[in-house]
Amino acid sequence: MHKYKLKIEYDGSNFVGWQKQNNGISIQESIEQAIFELTGEKTIVFGAGRTDAGVHALGQVAHFDLKKNFNIDKVRDGLNHHLRPNPIAILKVENASDSFHARFSAKQRTYEYLITNRRAPLTIKKNKSWSIFKTIELEKMRYEANFFIGKHDLQAFRSIDCQSNTSIKTIDEIKISKNNENLNISISAKSFLHSQVRIMVGTLVEIGKGKITESITQIIKSKDRTRAGVTAPAHGLYLVKVNY
Amino acid sequence: MHKYKLKIEYDGSNFVGWQKQNNGISIQESIEQAIFELTGEKTIVFGAGRTDAGVHALGQVAHFDLKKNFNIDKVRDGLNHHLRPNPIAILKVENASDSFHARFSAKQRTYEYLITNRRAPLTIKKNKSWSIFKTIELEKMRYEANFFIGKHDLQAFRSIDCQSNTSIKTIDEIKISKNNENLNISISAKSFLHSQVRIMVGTLVEIGKGKITESITQIIKSKDRTRAGVTAPAHGLYLVKVNY
Repeated sequence: MHKYKLKIEYDGSNFVGWQKQNNGISIQESIEQAIFELTGEKTIVFGAGRTDAGVHALGQVAHFDLKKNFNIDKVRDGLNHHLRPNPIAILKVENASDSFHARFSAKQRTYEYLITNRRAPLTIKKNKSWSIFKTIELEKMRYEANFFIGKHDLQAFRSIDCQSNTSIKTIDEIKISKNNENLNISISAKSFLHSQVRIMVGTLVEIGKGKITESITQIIKSKDRTRAGVTAPAHGLYLVKVNY
Repeated sequence: MHKYKLKIEYDGSNFVGWQKQNNGISIQESIEQAIFELTGEKTIVFGAGRTDAGVHALGQVAHFDLKKNFNIDKVRDGLNHHLRPNPIAILKVENASDSFHARFSAKQRTYEYLITNRRAPLTIKKNKSWSIFKTIELEKMRYEANFFIGKHDLQAFRSIDCQSNTSIKTIDEIKISKNNENLNISISAKSFLHSQVRIMVGTLVEIGKGKITESITQIIKSKDRTRAGVTAPAHGLYLVKVNY
């Protein structure tokens, strides 16, 4: 078997998410279908991050195996051809070693969350950023964000649907940058709980608005989902990078 | 009468352009309709730049007159409310003097043109940037772009539909910046001929691809539209700023 590694960009707006589901079209099955049309082989595509419905990717990584050996640039161009008009683009194809697994070999995942903080609604960035009207105090958010760094039990920051055995996760890095009305919250970790990034962002935003006055440390300690903030909408979230 | 000045952002994808036409919805009439719904007054909205179908704006400027005096922040929020779900946002409303005219008082307009130069098709930037597969030589484009600066007869760079009496225009500035796969061509002038920016961009791109080998100076001198390049697609163009 020949193993191929993909770097993928997509607009998640009209998909049910990365993973195959019964209620609509997923990124995963769209790529599997394109591989079948290109190569005649039925295969499973394994992604590094199982992004939810509406979540975007600038650098999702996935792998799949084929019996035949194909030129990697032809695979990239061929898959892009068969993926049209879906808003999914194969940025890069590489040959990968037998032991490589997009999900299990990943050492770090980086997500970015985009916020537009202004009175006017979104036009060009509609469904690409979270529109927040009320002024957010950046310094408060930045101060509290630091307390996420390190190893914690993040029970308070997981969706009730989360099926992970453990809620102990290690946050490697969290950066908040601002350019005029645009906020970018970048979070890196080996792995995340279900909806973790969106609940972290929702909580930081409510801290920035003054709606939550508890500290991140207190909320983490409480292990109580109701003390954390809202789950930020999916359409502001981007899977940007996966390191191996 | 009270005069109001607007700063407007829009996604031009699904409009026939700024100006009212018979074949679809324009930005202009959408704003006039919102003003009517908010104030009960019928008025004409005059824009600084009559952007074509598919062209976007980050900083279009317009003005209109009303009999009544309204609080400018309430006009902004009220128009944004009535403009929903159109992808048109009123970023700012100001009171303007009687002599102000969004179109005729403008001293300089700046357009930016976005290009994504990569093999993979667009996803998140679909209809927001011109997708070019073939490698463009940036330095060639930059060198030739300088020869647009100053006062020239730009007969070769106007659409056959252009109704302007003169084709003599002065380009104040042209800057080409690159960030990985993303090119941004920024062009400033007091005013432009019909499709001028898009023909300038199309010509520079063909120079960057090696498809056009004539210099910009030679093409300008020829006054021949057929010697210039293609008209770059509308969806890469943004009206970003108007100075008064």
